[in-house]
Amino acid sequence: PAEAQEATDALVRAIRDAQPGATIVVPNGSYQDLALEFTGRGTAEAPIRLVAEEKGKVFLEGQSYLRLSGEHLVVEGLVFRNGYTPTSEVISFRTADDELCNYCRVTECVIDNYNPPERYESDYWVGLYGRNNRFDHNYLTGKRNQGVTLAVRLNSEESRENGHRIDHNYFGERPILGSNGGETLRIGTSHYSLTNSNTVVESNYFDRCNGEHEIISNKSGGNIFRGNTFHECQGTLTMRHGNNTTVDGNFFFGNGKPNTGGIRIINERQTVTNNYLAGLTGYRFRGALVIMNGVPNSPINRYHQVKDSEASNNVFVDCDHIQLGAGSDEERSAVPESTVVADNVFVNRNRDSLFTVYDDISGITFRNNLLDKNLVPLQDEGFERRPLKLTDAGHGVMLPAGTPAADSIRARIPTMATPENTGVNWYPRREEAQHFGTGQTIEIGPGENTLSEAVARSAAGDIIRLAPGEYLQTMTIDLRHPITIEAAGSEKPLLVFRKTSLLNIENGGALTLRGVHVDGRECLDQPLNSVIRTSRYSMVNNYKLFIEDCDFTNLDVNHSFNVLRVYKHTFADSIVVRNSSFRNVSGSVLPLDQENDDIGIYNAENVVLENCFFDKIGQAALHLHRGGSDESTFGPMLTIDRCTFDEVGTDEKWNRSESSVSLHGTQYVHITNSVFDDSAPVRLHLVVGEPVVLIENSVFSGGTELLDNGEPYRTQNLHLNLEEPVT
Amino acid sequence: PAEAQEATDALVRAIRDAQPGATIVVPNGSYQDLALEFTGRGTAEAPIRLVAEEKGKVFLEGQSYLRLSGEHLVVEGLVFRNGYTPTSEVISFRTADDELCNYCRVTECVIDNYNPPERYESDYWVGLYGRNNRFDHNYLTGKRNQGVTLAVRLNSEESRENGHRIDHNYFGERPILGSNGGETLRIGTSHYSLTNSNTVVESNYFDRCNGEHEIISNKSGGNIFRGNTFHECQGTLTMRHGNNTTVDGNFFFGNGKPNTGGIRIINERQTVTNNYLAGLTGYRFRGALVIMNGVPNSPINRYHQVKDSEASNNVFVDCDHIQLGAGSDEERSAVPESTVVADNVFVNRNRDSLFTVYDDISGITFRNNLLDKNLVPLQDEGFERRPLKLTDAGHGVMLPAGTPAADSIRARIPTMATPENTGVNWYPRREEAQHFGTGQTIEIGPGENTLSEAVARSAAGDIIRLAPGEYLQTMTIDLRHPITIEAAGSEKPLLVFRKTSLLNIENGGALTLRGVHVDGRECLDQPLNSVIRTSRYSMVNNYKLFIEDCDFTNLDVNHSFNVLRVYKHTFADSIVVRNSSFRNVSGSVLPLDQENDDIGIYNAENVVLENCFFDKIGQAALHLHRGGSDESTFGPMLTIDRCTFDEVGTDEKWNRSESSVSLHGTQYVHITNSVFDDSAPVRLHLVVGEPVVLIENSVFSGGTELLDNGEPYRTQNLHLNLEEPVT
Ligand SMILES: [Ca+2]
Ligand SMILES: [Ca+2]
Repeated sequence: PAEAQEATDALVRAIRDAQPGATIVVPNGSYQDLALEFTGRGTAEAPIRLVAEEKGKVFLEGQSYLRLSGEHLVVEGLVFRNGYTPTSEVISFRTADDELCNYCRVTECVIDNYNPPERYESDYWVGLYGRNNRFDHNYLTGKRNQGVTLAVRLNSEESRENGHRIDHNYFGERPILGSNGGETLRIGTSHYSLTNSNTVVESNYFDRCNGEHEIISNKSGGNIFRGNTFHECQGTLTMRHGNNTTVDGNFFFGNGKPNTGGIRIINERQTVTNNYLAGLTGYRFRGALVIMNGVPNSPINRYHQVKDSEASNNVFVDCDHIQLGAGSDEERSAVPESTVVADNVFVNRNRDSLFTVYDDISGITFRNNLLDKNLVPLQDEGFERRPLKLTDAGHGVMLPAGTPAADSIRARIPTMATPENTGVNWYPRREEAQHFGTGQTIEIGPGENTLSEAVARSAAGDIIRLAPGEYLQTMTIDLRHPITIEAAGSEKPLLVFRKTSLLNIENGGALTLRGVHVDGRECLDQPLNSVIRTSRYSMVNNYKLFIEDCDFTNLDVNHSFNVLRVYKHTFADSIVVRNSSFRNVSGSVLPLDQENDDIGIYNAENVVLENCFFDKIGQAALHLHRGGSDESTFGPMLTIDRCTFDEVGTDEKWNRSESSVSLHGTQYVHITNSVFDDSAPVRLHLVVGEPVVLIENSVFSGGTELLDNGEPYRTQNLHLNLEEPVT
Repeated sequence: PAEAQEATDALVRAIRDAQPGATIVVPNGSYQDLALEFTGRGTAEAPIRLVAEEKGKVFLEGQSYLRLSGEHLVVEGLVFRNGYTPTSEVISFRTADDELCNYCRVTECVIDNYNPPERYESDYWVGLYGRNNRFDHNYLTGKRNQGVTLAVRLNSEESRENGHRIDHNYFGERPILGSNGGETLRIGTSHYSLTNSNTVVESNYFDRCNGEHEIISNKSGGNIFRGNTFHECQGTLTMRHGNNTTVDGNFFFGNGKPNTGGIRIINERQTVTNNYLAGLTGYRFRGALVIMNGVPNSPINRYHQVKDSEASNNVFVDCDHIQLGAGSDEERSAVPESTVVADNVFVNRNRDSLFTVYDDISGITFRNNLLDKNLVPLQDEGFERRPLKLTDAGHGVMLPAGTPAADSIRARIPTMATPENTGVNWYPRREEAQHFGTGQTIEIGPGENTLSEAVARSAAGDIIRLAPGEYLQTMTIDLRHPITIEAAGSEKPLLVFRKTSLLNIENGGALTLRGVHVDGRECLDQPLNSVIRTSRYSMVNNYKLFIEDCDFTNLDVNHSFNVLRVYKHTFADSIVVRNSSFRNVSGSVLPLDQENDDIGIYNAENVVLENCFFDKIGQAALHLHRGGSDESTFGPMLTIDRCTFDEVGTDEKWNRSESSVSLHGTQYVHITNSVFDDSAPVRLHLVVGEPVVLIENSVFSGGTELLDNGEPYRTQNLHLNLEEPVT
């Protein structure tokens, strides 16, 4: 620490004393809690540089952060990791409200999973203020908490019409946040959106930036997005506010991944040209091309009408949805005006119908658009069908031969952003996802705490295989990496436990539980036990939970004994339960209802129940809650297939949901081939985002009701009001 | 670690090889995560001993715990601190369900604040199983999580009629838990309560064992409590279940502290004799002497009728409440039978009326009880009034001269339990309470993060004094010890901040904020900001929050901006707000409503609002919630005096409580000299424990309603339904 303090002091002195042309070297090493303030005035010819002694050997950790202000400053080669900023920004282009950067540059820096423990404590990784700054060749990956990754701020006169350049950065994976505030790039806010930012965003690579609906939230005027590549990103480049923005020559590769989208047009005089969009599956606000309805006389923060805008010379290959007049509702009734869609090419080898029209689109002029011959034209005027043949133009780009749009895109391929020409080449690229079954197999036998001992010596991806017999846990088990716990053979090992929970998915943890029998008979006689729980604290890492071929019995020593207990500000990518049974549970099986602030956040993205049997469950078998009116998220999404619910939700005192299955604000629901017998009602509360709901081929018997809030949804082949579940 | 492992291995070998008469020495040092298992068979003449090399120099820390089983084992001189048990017990007199202790002894051990981080993750510090074991001369202090400090378990035949002896222990402070499960000693559970435990509890010192209503929860038959001293304990020695228990020759010193109680009689053939009870102020279930009503044909876990019991020869000095037929309600309608109250002496120098009769007490025979001449007799029969003179009998005992009861107590004074003859003499006694203002004064000036820097270098009890000017916090401030933040002069310093909160009371922290002005104008435009919050995690330490002479303004940058945000499983001893104003707050001022499981737990014990002004508050100024039907706790308690509420609770969308003040399950409420104008309703939901409620000398105007759930409470001099708040 004394040495560290000396190094820091030397740095502070060097910065203070630096003259134009100076290079300040940050010695190799790991710096803890370093609040680095870099101020000075260089010149165009002689900037002041703050550079790592060696790239990849200078680490800022703990509660370190960097602020800079002045002119002609350059920062190069710093790595932020193993910590988070205690302030609102990791790298800030200002040191105070009125001390901003001009002509400053941050290049070849890395910010790697530099997240606070609190998912909804928001921060920016980079805040750009002032004018004429450049942020280039940086690598930012694994932002998991709320808050834009890179924000261009226009909150003072001195930051507008800024001419910033954001280029050649590699924006690595941003996992689904499950909330607004998961944008990778935002320029401006609604408040200043009618002023020009004049920011150029070019030649960046966006890799799986899945935080929310908006990969990029453009909220100001005069910006240019060109030559960027979007690789399997859920969401769209959204022109949310502001006018006169250009989106030209970008490449979108969806590769058929869910919710991948393209470009969303709102506001006036927007230009979308020469973009290549392929394999995008997203619908509604995540369409490959979305032209929105606006709000008449919109307040500054709602949707402004689309006017005088243009989408031309773009190529759409295997994109599933083009959305016109999207968002049309009572409030958003102002249809697009004086807008042109021209010279685009549409090819789709999987489906015949691409266009969805939500309102009057007579204000859009269609001209000279080409459709492959299998596609149904939106209308006659402005569309021509002819056989189009795709040819490989390199770099994964498939272009229809002989079209002007394809020609202009082909000309841009040599300079398109790739993993190789963006970011830094001296820092390893990370994979952010969790994987099961990639590690060693640990064989264990029955006994007291043999399971927790095995977990303690396990590593990520390991499989713990349990011989038949009884496993008693007198202590709880914390999972901090992905683990599979499974039966060694066909006989189900018996797991009993004495603490309030058996298995805890802590931050970074994930669980596959396969082929075991869990019984609650040894549990303490107290309410609120659970077999599995998430961390009681906020989890910034998303988790996965798979339960397969398991039996759960006698979880009823006291009231409100759950199979799973999740806590506020935890988020599951996937919860999948297959071929399992739940008998005599006093609480709930999957109560995913802990986000009770009703601001659009929720506990799980994908929930799948297949071939499960729920018998005598005191509270809701499933409670999935997403409250509020926010439209930024994809989920929650639910599938129930081949499940039986018998006497579920019967505890009149403690089943506060008064339901056997309660779905509130769920965005996608498919319930099929299932039986709901002698149970509390199945409740649907459909709000926000035109949820897609289908309930079919199912039986509701023994007084089990299907209740909804009056919003429309699809049903087919339902057997309602039966006395017994025979069909 | 290698050395540590060697020491542990040596210990394991020594235990394995020990023969009767062996002494196993635990070498001095701190052991981390040591799961010590001590098994063996000594003899009465030659026990096997496990002893510290030097007392006070062997520490078990981290996740260490001790289990023992066998015969004639002795453990001596271990200290558990800086950690908690990962299992359900710290010291367990069994190693498995069927491997118990007989004739084993644990003596001169210390368990000091050995608590898990989770308040409601329950454990026992000591679990006694088997028969004829002794637990003596130990020092247990600072148990703060849920779960009995010392439990005698009768859960198998081999643990009943056990003849255990629990003696000469010093039970140090147990802070208020705010829930059931805060007992210091429990013998049995309702399930086995009709069997005899035959445990002797003698000569122990109970110092401020305030966890809950029951200091001791006697739940079995044939136990003897004698010669124990109860010093300022909130609660009573409760004969909750089981029969034939003797409570003889104990000393209770309440010293006028709130909620201090004596002895509570339930069930049959209980004997309460020769006890000295002084300065006990508790009422209802915490009376100095409580004889309960029972439930006719009670289930095993409810209240059994009092029969054939006796309370005689006890002396009550300055005790405020003797409660007869207590708990009488529709369910508890079985009045006491064949019970004798005789030869007791009552003196009270502060009040004239001691007895409260809740039901028919004709089943109690009163005989030869003496009252000081100022006291109102319960009835003529069995009571004699005469002037009684108190004399100092030593050790703080004041006895009425010339009474047989006093004589028998005087004879017991020489052997009464004291701090000196209990526990250990080689380990310092702790004070568990938080104190403000005991440290240094740190003077600071305005600027960015000057406050957080001062807090970072502060120690417990320090005072940070702020010169006038503006203080900007770009980072949040964690308080981990008691701190006073106050204005240096009469001019209020201005505090602004940018994170989601300004000051966080983390576990161990406490705050006095005095003479400052807090403004929300710099806060991020996001919902759910707050000025002060508790830890987001469970807090096992109670905290205090005092706000005096402060102004709060413009906490309205977005919805639900609170002054205080508390989290689940945090607990305030006291929240006192005086001479302060709150203007333009979009959220709530004190939303103490996060314990939503409705199992009798709550967020704050004492809440006091004095001379405060609440103006334009979006949600409830105060929301105090205690749900459920549990009767184990003292609070919450509330006083509102000289406060004005104007336009409070007006956010129709986000004020879910639909109130300006919402009180649910509060046990004590006094609202006086206050004005409620143009506000959402004041709501009272009165449940459980005969809450004491008085609302007086107040004005409800501008449509502000006073709503209740139909339960009775006192009002006087209220001005309801005024148009304007002039009176
Ligand atoms: Ca957004
Ligand atoms: Ca109790």
